[in-house]
Amino acid sequence: MQLGMIGLGRMGANILRRVMTAGHVGVAYDRDAGAVAALVAEGAQGASSLADLVASLSAPRAVWVMLPAGEATEATLRELHGLLHEGDIIIEGGNSFWKDSARRGEEAAAHGLHYLDIGTSGGVWGLKRGYCLMIGGETQVVRRLDPILAALVPGEGSAPPTEGRESRDPRPSKGYVHCGPNGAGHYAKMVHNGIEYGMMQAMAEGLDLMRAAPFELDLPDITEAWRRGSVVSSWLLDLTAQALAYDPDLAEYSGHVSDSGEGRWTVDTAVEQAVPVPVLAAALFARFRSRQEASFADKALSAMRKGFGGHLEPKNE
Amino acid sequence: MQLGMIGLGRMGANILRRVMTAGHVGVAYDRDAGAVAALVAEGAQGASSLADLVASLSAPRAVWVMLPAGEATEATLRELHGLLHEGDIIIEGGNSFWKDSARRGEEAAAHGLHYLDIGTSGGVWGLKRGYCLMIGGETQVVRRLDPILAALVPGEGSAPPTEGRESRDPRPSKGYVHCGPNGAGHYAKMVHNGIEYGMMQAMAEGLDLMRAAPFELDLPDITEAWRRGSVVSSWLLDLTAQALAYDPDLAEYSGHVSDSGEGRWTVDTAVEQAVPVPVLAAALFARFRSRQEASFADKALSAMRKGFGGHLEPKNE
Amino acid sequence: MQLGMIGLGRMGANILRRVMTAGHVGVAYDRDAGAVAALVAEGAQGASSLADLVASLSAPRAVWVMLPAGEATEATLRELHGLLHEGDIIIEGGNSFWKDSARRGEEAAAHGLHYLDIGTSGGVWGLKRGYCLMIGGETQVVRRLDPILAALVPGEGSAPPTEGRESRDPRPSKGYVHCGPNGAGHYAKMVHNGIEYGMMQAMAEGLDLMRAAPFELDLPDITEAWRRGSVVSSWLLDLTAQALAYDPDLAEYSGHVSDSGEGRWTVDTAVEQAVPVPVLAAALFARFRSRQEASFADKALSAMRKGFGGHLEPKNE
Amino acid sequence: MQLGMIGLGRMGANILRRVMTAGHVGVAYDRDAGAVAALVAEGAQGASSLADLVASLSAPRAVWVMLPAGEATEATLRELHGLLHEGDIIIEGGNSFWKDSARRGEEAAAHGLHYLDIGTSGGVWGLKRGYCLMIGGETQVVRRLDPILAALVPGEGSAPPTEGRESRDPRPSKGYVHCGPNGAGHYAKMVHNGIEYGMMQAMAEGLDLMRAAPFELDLPDITEAWRRGSVVSSWLLDLTAQALAYDPDLAEYSGHVSDSGEGRWTVDTAVEQAVPVPVLAAALFARFRSRQEASFADKALSAMRKGFGGHLEPKNE
Repeated sequence: MQLGMIGLGRMGANILRRVMTAGHVGVAYDRDAGAVAALVAEGAQGASSLADLVASLSAPRAVWVMLPAGEATEATLRELHGLLHEGDIIIEGGNSFWKDSARRGEEAAAHGLHYLDIGTSGGVWGLKRGYCLMIGGETQVVRRLDPILAALVPGEGSAPPTEGRESRDPRPSKGYVHCGPNGAGHYAKMVHNGIEYGMMQAMAEGLDLMRAAPFELDLPDITEAWRRGSVVSSWLLDLTAQALAYDPDLAEYSGHVSDSGEGRWTVDTAVEQAVPVPVLAAALFARFRSRQEASFADKALSAMRKGFGGHLEPKNE
Repeated sequence: MQLGMIGLGRMGANILRRVMTAGHVGVAYDRDAGAVAALVAEGAQGASSLADLVASLSAPRAVWVMLPAGEATEATLRELHGLLHEGDIIIEGGNSFWKDSARRGEEAAAHGLHYLDIGTSGGVWGLKRGYCLMIGGETQVVRRLDPILAALVPGEGSAPPTEGRESRDPRPSKGYVHCGPNGAGHYAKMVHNGIEYGMMQAMAEGLDLMRAAPFELDLPDITEAWRRGSVVSSWLLDLTAQALAYDPDLAEYSGHVSDSGEGRWTVDTAVEQAVPVPVLAAALFARFRSRQEASFADKALSAMRKGFGGHLEPKNE
Repeated sequence: MQLGMIGLGRMGANILRRVMTAGHVGVAYDRDAGAVAALVAEGAQGASSLADLVASLSAPRAVWVMLPAGEATEATLRELHGLLHEGDIIIEGGNSFWKDSARRGEEAAAHGLHYLDIGTSGGVWGLKRGYCLMIGGETQVVRRLDPILAALVPGEGSAPPTEGRESRDPRPSKGYVHCGPNGAGHYAKMVHNGIEYGMMQAMAEGLDLMRAAPFELDLPDITEAWRRGSVVSSWLLDLTAQALAYDPDLAEYSGHVSDSGEGRWTVDTAVEQAVPVPVLAAALFARFRSRQEASFADKALSAMRKGFGGHLEPKNE
Repeated sequence: MQLGMIGLGRMGANILRRVMTAGHVGVAYDRDAGAVAALVAEGAQGASSLADLVASLSAPRAVWVMLPAGEATEATLRELHGLLHEGDIIIEGGNSFWKDSARRGEEAAAHGLHYLDIGTSGGVWGLKRGYCLMIGGETQVVRRLDPILAALVPGEGSAPPTEGRESRDPRPSKGYVHCGPNGAGHYAKMVHNGIEYGMMQAMAEGLDLMRAAPFELDLPDITEAWRRGSVVSSWLLDLTAQALAYDPDLAEYSGHVSDSGEGRWTVDTAVEQAVPVPVLAAALFARFRSRQEASFADKALSAMRKGFGGHLEPKNE
């Protein structure tokens, strides 16, 4: 099969590499000609423009857009609406808001095009381990692209099978799942990332509490032991143990933690649906707080304390 | 009536002043002879030692201990057990843990003494406005001390009466309440302070959110307007509006916010009683966080992000 | 001055009453003719349609829209755009999202109309106590309507003046504040309500913790005492003491707590602006949770516990 | 080597089984003679009393106490102090509070005995998968018992090795870690369980949010897919996918979630050490809340809402 890839950043390039490794034909496009050249050197066919990319593919075309969420993605989709032909498929695999994906699916349909929104998890490890794919779109389109999707996922060997799934869709046990109509793929990815935030914060708070213990606890050793037989065994724990093995004090980190759209959309969606998400929200707020110095909220607390109690907080407590 | 006061810090001295203003006789003791002299200059009788204080009072004696919670209070109570006489009353008005107050009541009883634990709210404003008193101890002892207690509280004029209380205990409508046996006074005070933490944090978060608005909002003016007719009208709002009137940017505050035992005991007690207190706990944690710089928890989040996504957080984001 | 009022629910009717009490002329319109008749009986001029309302007012007209936020308000504004004349003023006083108010201001301007968004606090007590008004819009329009606005607010006597405001805008000390351009009024109101949620939840958690005490605490008496001299003195405390005086067990309440748009918008806006609001969000989530029975999240916790530990939670714990 | 086991519940019995499978000699004691007989049938030597157990072991003895935390454990330890001989080792592997473990270590030392506190994770799966062990106590005692400990843990093959640990203690890579002096083992276990609570709640909230989606999302399939290549891969996810595969609606669960001492101690310790743990506390409070119906806090919110706004919450909203 052929796959056109628009956007050769780390994610886009690695997805195309993994597809080509499985024997498919990759056509690569990026605004940066150097990025295209690099993929061509690895066996991809290069394209010099979106129009050239479309011209390089046989109908029905499958074009994967892997660009920063927001305007970059939006503009490219608009341009593709004019270039692609009826029956072609657009795949959008970035970190998009699920409501945008639902809308974009309708816009594509209005141009006679099919649309898949694919939430993609796996990060820098995906090329080697495979990607977990959460897919929204029409059933027959998801089926048509199965050879591509099956090439991307980790496969059955990557985790022991869950009992009782014998009569169920076999794809989830390989790492991909058709979640529902357009928007459903990115909804599931959004929730996935929300859970990720919560799990990370739980781990981080626990580590902080171990640092505060009256004994000196060896965090690299304790997290390493937890990786075997404990209830908190997880990939995030593996990564934590790895980071601590190299740098037990995590001295290279500033403590300013970024957040992405998905953590925010999770809270927004929970608010909209009236679902209580105290942990997911607390995890997001911890990141916001990590980027504040001497927050105005904290100063206001001190001002109130001074007001009723005459306490002036020490400047260098 | 006579009242002996041990501990002439701001709270102890002002309580004695307010009692004397009402016509009672104050006997003052502090380790610092200068503090005693100051009160003597205002009409108190001075004492040079705990023994001297006890000797200066007629039986049955009433001795108010107003010292830092913990060992200072504990040691003084032990010494008083040996100096006071059967039927005398110890009043402990500091910020003590309610379980300590329950135990101390039993210890006093074992020495033939009565004991009152009085949670005292009012801060630096109490001398002028009166103190709100939450009292634990035996009913007849609370009654016996009523002249002193009634002198300390704000009185009926301080707030409009609540309808439907006509057949109820009139003391709460003056600002004092007999909560129950020893420990109950400090329990109610602990909860009071827990609520205070939550209200303060709610206000602080709201101010922070106004500072982040896409318009420049005038916080001194908005908080001033809220003081009239709005649902958030409160003494804490009055203090906030006052602080902002003098310093709209609160530039004199470091942003490091202290916490006292009572905020912590509130959460501990809630955990012990299995009562969910998400807001009270979040308010306490916000103060803890305000005193951390670049927390280890935050660094751990960054380390995990780097692990799975290759993101290295910018040092100066 | 004349004021047209569209929407004679409790808020709209009471605002018009308070304006008329101050000597202004009220013109009343509601889809429900009975509501109009009731106001006419109190001295208002009645209108049978929006067009009739507009015809009854002299230019430049001031029309206050007091309808449920959302489509009811939106449709009325659109209709008014076609009926009003250049230089007329629309006032929107409902619980609208501040971004809608910003947009509506632009839409009104495109029709040559002025627009004020006024966040209004005071509830059922506003008729008697006055309303706290948070206003967004053009400076000269706010000034022009000052006679109406001044009639609505509680006035200076309602709270002791804040020191240091002598050289500042006198309006906030009467209960109203011009917050900024369109949207700013409802932004301030949104934050106000967010703070209100947090304060209420703080109070509620404290009461719950007192109910869980090892002593039987008299909540009506304790909350009554707190109203005098304590740090948590507030209008919400007054209301709490009142409710408890009538019904110490609050037996008439189901425990299902509603939430309005403003609590949600507060969290959404905080997420958008990256402001940590742990307390405001926890307060909102507590309301969501109050309306769930046996949440799926809780069942999922039990399922995990059974998975790793073999614990089957008792059905009737 | 010989190991005496006191307490043949699921955990104690399985630990002894796993030790015996590795070729060690197990001596089994329980108040319930039937439980002893069952282990004898599997090759253990039975004991009819604590004294008999001690008599059955050669010096220096190693006796593992695996009883409910609290008084059951406390009483047994006191009895063992009188029965064991200088140089013998007590191992306490239950879910004890780390401060108790520190104290018990001192008490054992006062009787000339050695003491190990071992936090044990693995639940019902430990017999097959091995247990993760977090150990507090003297270095040479931990070393002496290494054959027993090494028999209990999952071993190196259970998780891929972490890079950069080549020069470090090899035991953590097998699943056990000597955390420090007495108390340190249970401290690490406490934090482990705190993290577990947070991770579970994150997962549970995410599932709840998927149930609230505007699409019907297939939770069994989505969680199954996440097990491969996604950032939230974890044992808790494996268990979740398993539970959902059998019962997508989790209909067998009541939604009342229990909590154990360790979740509570985590929050208590964080409060004591001034470490902000918003997620760990929120996870604990969610469990408390799951066991309340129509909480008093929620009723209080409704009472306040009625007070200021006249809203009476619908009984059956």
